Amino acid sequence: MKYPNKIKKLHHNETNYANRGMTLENDLNLTNNYYLENNIAIIYKKATPIQVVKINYNNKKHPLIKEAYFQTPSTTDYNGVYHGKYIDFEAKETKNKTSFPLTNIHKHQLNHIEKVIEHGGISFIIVRWTTLNETYLLKGETLISYINNKKQKSIPLTFFKKEGYIIKENYQPRLDYLKIIDLIYIGDSNEKNNTLSKK
Amino acid sequence: MKYPNKIKKLHHNETNYANRGMTLENDLNLTNNYYLENNIAIIYKKATPIQVVKINYNNKKHPLIKEAYFQTPSTTDYNGVYHGKYIDFEAKETKNKTSFPLTNIHKHQLNHIEKVIEHGGISFIIVRWTTLNETYLLKGETLISYINNKKQKSIPLTFFKKEGYIIKENYQPRLDYLKIIDLIYIGDSNEKNNTLSKK
Repeated sequence: MKYPNKIKKLHHNETNYANRGMTLENDLNLTNNYYLENNIAIIYKKATPIQVVKINYNNKKHPLIKEAYFQTPSTTDYNGVYHGKYIDFEAKETKNKTSFPLTNIHKHQLNHIEKVIEHGGISFIIVRWTTLNETYLLKGETLISYINNKKQKSIPLTFFKKEGYIIKENYQPRLDYLKIIDLIYIGDSNEKNNTLSKK
Repeated sequence: MKYPNKIKKLHHNETNYANRGMTLENDLNLTNNYYLENNIAIIYKKATPIQVVKINYNNKKHPLIKEAYFQTPSTTDYNGVYHGKYIDFEAKETKNKTSFPLTNIHKHQLNHIEKVIEHGGISFIIVRWTTLNETYLLKGETLISYINNKKQKSIPLTFFKKEGYIIKENYQPRLDYLKIIDLIYIGDSNEKNNTLSKK
């Protein structure tokens, strides 16, 4: 397998596949690599947008960026294609045990999720409760509706348990979130196409 | 309209909409902004991947990146969603007048285009011939087939004229490439779904 070195290393160093010190981002990278290598889907983490201010061109082939700043992403973390469908999601970790603070998701990210759904794409969030070691997928539609109706500043874990879908950890792929996408979007294609497609 | 300041400025400074000094990237950014504002599609330029080596955290809210390097992108420049379909493309300029050198597109980018098509996405390249001031869209399928069959190091302009689609410049949107996507993919959905969908 052609995992990038960094990921390969993390993978080899593990003694078991329980989530000991692996971040959600690492798990998703491993999962997306698995999807890519096994020709299941093409989903990448988007590069972090960086504003470059000063560049030193002494080495023309490898210019050195001397001054730069992180920019706030205007969209979500991951996107790609699965069975022709546009997939777009945000992944977050929380140390909390009972509720997920909505300050974790920016307003423009919520707008983006809403727009993606409006345009017939599949959009969701993946939230890992690190203390509990549980990871849930919550449909974008459910998230937006919760925010619009409940006017709360956080989403209780009980809501994730009731309205979301738990993603079990496996050896390969580590977090098989596309299995849930199959179940809730792709399998049920007639109904979902009607709900999701642009008016 | 809520164009970012930079784009607004470029837009206002123009005296006519002929392509005088506007780069293809600027034109595509204006076009994608138009699509976004008018609720037509959600297509973004991907951020340039940058490897960050040293960060100064003196200002905690705005950490300063002191050393970083540009990385080679492993995919294409733009992606997004249009009518539920995954859209993915690369944009290139050439000063040449008769042929487009294939060194402009990396091997891993070609692989990516091929994979996107295999997974039912819509993938293509947009090439601007800056000296001639002409811009063409070439389907990914056509590009891959040309490369596999012709074993040439460049694609002649005549091939673009015959097998590609010219994108006329307008006031708004500047480069209405989705009109061509409508024509060659979306409109003809039955035939194309058969050709494009994953086996």
